[in-house]
Amino acid sequence: MPTIAVDAMGGDFAPDEIVHGVARVSIESEIPCVLVGDERRIRDLLARRPHRGERIDVVHAGSAIGMEEEPKQAIRDKHDCSLVVGAELVAAGRADALVSAGNTGACVLACARSFRAIAGVRRTALASVFPRKVRYEGQDPLGLLLDVGATIRCESPELVQFAIMGSAYAKRISKVPSPRVGLLNMGSEPVKGGPVLSETFRTLGAVPGLNFVGNIEGNLATGKADVIVCEGLLGNVALKLIEGVAEVVVDIASFAARESWRWRLGLALLSSGIRQVRDLTDYSNYGGSPILGFEKLFIKAHGRSNAKAIANAVKVAAKAVRDDVSGEIARMVATVPVRRES
Amino acid sequence: MPTIAVDAMGGDFAPDEIVHGVARVSIESEIPCVLVGDERRIRDLLARRPHRGERIDVVHAGSAIGMEEEPKQAIRDKHDCSLVVGAELVAAGRADALVSAGNTGACVLACARSFRAIAGVRRTALASVFPRKVRYEGQDPLGLLLDVGATIRCESPELVQFAIMGSAYAKRISKVPSPRVGLLNMGSEPVKGGPVLSETFRTLGAVPGLNFVGNIEGNLATGKADVIVCEGLLGNVALKLIEGVAEVVVDIASFAARESWRWRLGLALLSSGIRQVRDLTDYSNYGGSPILGFEKLFIKAHGRSNAKAIANAVKVAAKAVRDDVSGEIARMVATVPVRRES
Repeated sequence: MPTIAVDAMGGDFAPDEIVHGVARVSIESEIPCVLVGDERRIRDLLARRPHRGERIDVVHAGSAIGMEEEPKQAIRDKHDCSLVVGAELVAAGRADALVSAGNTGACVLACARSFRAIAGVRRTALASVFPRKVRYEGQDPLGLLLDVGATIRCESPELVQFAIMGSAYAKRISKVPSPRVGLLNMGSEPVKGGPVLSETFRTLGAVPGLNFVGNIEGNLATGKADVIVCEGLLGNVALKLIEGVAEVVVDIASFAARESWRWRLGLALLSSGIRQVRDLTDYSNYGGSPILGFEKLFIKAHGRSNAKAIANAVKVAAKAVRDDVSGEIARMVATVPVRRES
Repeated sequence: MPTIAVDAMGGDFAPDEIVHGVARVSIESEIPCVLVGDERRIRDLLARRPHRGERIDVVHAGSAIGMEEEPKQAIRDKHDCSLVVGAELVAAGRADALVSAGNTGACVLACARSFRAIAGVRRTALASVFPRKVRYEGQDPLGLLLDVGATIRCESPELVQFAIMGSAYAKRISKVPSPRVGLLNMGSEPVKGGPVLSETFRTLGAVPGLNFVGNIEGNLATGKADVIVCEGLLGNVALKLIEGVAEVVVDIASFAARESWRWRLGLALLSSGIRQVRDLTDYSNYGGSPILGFEKLFIKAHGRSNAKAIANAVKVAAKAVRDDVSGEIARMVATVPVRRES
C-alpha cells in the first residue's frame, strides 16, 4: 500500500479540514499518510477526531505558503514550508505521492524543484477537471483538461506528450479503457489553428494506443472527449472563463431574486435542478487533478477542499501510485519519437 | 456621405433580409448603398419593399459563397462571387466600406486579397463584440474583443497594434472618449503569461493616448475593459466557449422544463429576466464588428442578421468612414515604434 504525504497547511480551510480528511482516510482505508506542517496544531486537531494513529505520521514544517502569495518568491524564501518539506519527503522515498490544496503556482514550482521528470518528457502539465454531460450510465461526470498553466506556450511535441499523459491518467483513474482525446482548437478541420496545432493533429492521429477524436471547439462539456489538450495559457484562460460565466449566471439570478418576488418564487422552484448542476460540479467528490510528467505523482486538491475532498484526493493519489500511472506514461512516451528541440 | 457596399448574398437569411435591411437604410438615412449579388433576385426583392431607389445601386455578381464552404477554396474558385466583387468595388473607390453577414473566414480572405494594409500595421485583426455588465447609465452594453481569428499566433508588437486599433475604433464608434483596454491573460500580475504577454503589458502601459487597464482574467463581462486584446487562437476559443456555456445553460433549462411542472412554472416566472439577458446579447442592435488594419473598412455582421441588424451594420460602417477610423489608426500606429520582424 503506497504512503501518501499530505500538505496539512495548504488550502482555504487548512489545517482543520486537511487533518480531518486524513483522519477519515485512516478509518475508511488502509492507506498510510504523512501529515506535513505545524506539528503541535496537527496533533491537537488529530486528538479531537476519531482516527487510526498507526496509519498517520506527522512531520513538522516551520512555515506555510499562503493562497495569495507570489509563488516564485514564496518558494525561494520559505525553505521549511509544509509544501517543500512534503515534496522532499516524496523525492527521498519516504512517501510515494504528495497531496496539497494549497497555492497552485507554488505546487507546480515545488514539484519542479524536488521531482525528476519522466525520461523523455519535455514539459510537465497541470491538469484540471471540468464538468460535462454524461452520455451513458456510469460515465465519469468530469473530464480532464491539460495543461492549465504549467507550460504557457507549447510546441507540437509537448502537446502530443500532454495527450499521452492525460490519456494514461484517465485510463488508470477513471477506468475508461480507451479515453477519447481531443485537441482544443478554433475549428474542427485538421488544418485549423496554425502550424503547431495542425502538426499536433497529424501526429496524434498516428500515436499507437491513443484514441484521438480530433479537434474540440466551443463547448468542452459536450462529453465528446474524456481528455482535452491545449497549451497552458489557453487552458488557464478557458478554465477561468468557464468559472466566470458560471458566476455571471449566479449573479444574474441573485440580482433578480432581490428585485422581484416572481423571480424569487421561480428560483425556489428551480432549486432542485440547480442542486443537480451543483452536484455535478462538486469537486469534493472528485479529489483533485494531477501534475503530470514527473516520476513522482502530485495531486492538487481544490483550494476550497473540505475533509471529504481531501480524503478523496488521498485515495486518488494512492490509486494512481498503485496502478503505476507514471510507468504507463513513461512506456507510452517512449513509443513516440520526438524531434529534438530546435 | 460615404457609400457602403453590401454583400447581398452572405448570411443565413440572404438575400431577403439583406435587401430588406438596405431598403430600410434608404428611408431612415441618406447613406447611399450598393447591393452586390444576383441582380434579378435583388431587384425582385427591392420591388416588394418600400425604399428610395435613388440611394440604392445594384451590381451583379454571378455566384455566392455559402456559410459552410471552406473559405480558402471558395475564394480561390469563385472569382465572381458577391463578396469578392464587393471588396473590389471598395478597393477601386466605387464604395467606401463593405458590409457582409457571410462566411467569416472568406470575409477575412477577401479583404486580404483586395485591400491594402494601413502603413505600419503588421497584421490585421477580426474583432467581435461580447455582452457585459453595464456599470453606468448610457454605457455601451457590448465590449470589443480582438483578435478572434484573423491572426492565430501573435508576437508582442502585433498585440500592441491590436490594442491601438481596437481603442481607435471604440473611441469613434462607441463614443467612449478614452476606451479602457485590457490584455486577456492567465493572471492579473504584469509578469503573467510568458515573455510575449509580459512584454505586451510593459509596452501597452507606455503607449501615449492609450488607456491600458492591465490584464483581464476569467470573466470578460465584468465591464472592467471596453476593448480586450489577445491572439486569434485564444480569442476564437474564448468566444466559442462563452457561446458554448450559454448553450449549456439553455440546454439544462429546456431539459428541466420537459421533466417537471415545477421547472416549467419556475422558467415561466423567470422569463422576463431571461428576456433582459437576451436583449443584452441581441446582436441586431449592434450591427457587427470590424476587420481592422486595412485602409478600407469592413464590417462583419452576424451570420444570423435580420434586416434591422444589416441596417445597423450599414450605419456603423458609414459612421466609421465619416469619423476616419482608419486615419486614426494610422496616426496612432505611427507613434509607436515597432521592432523589425525577426
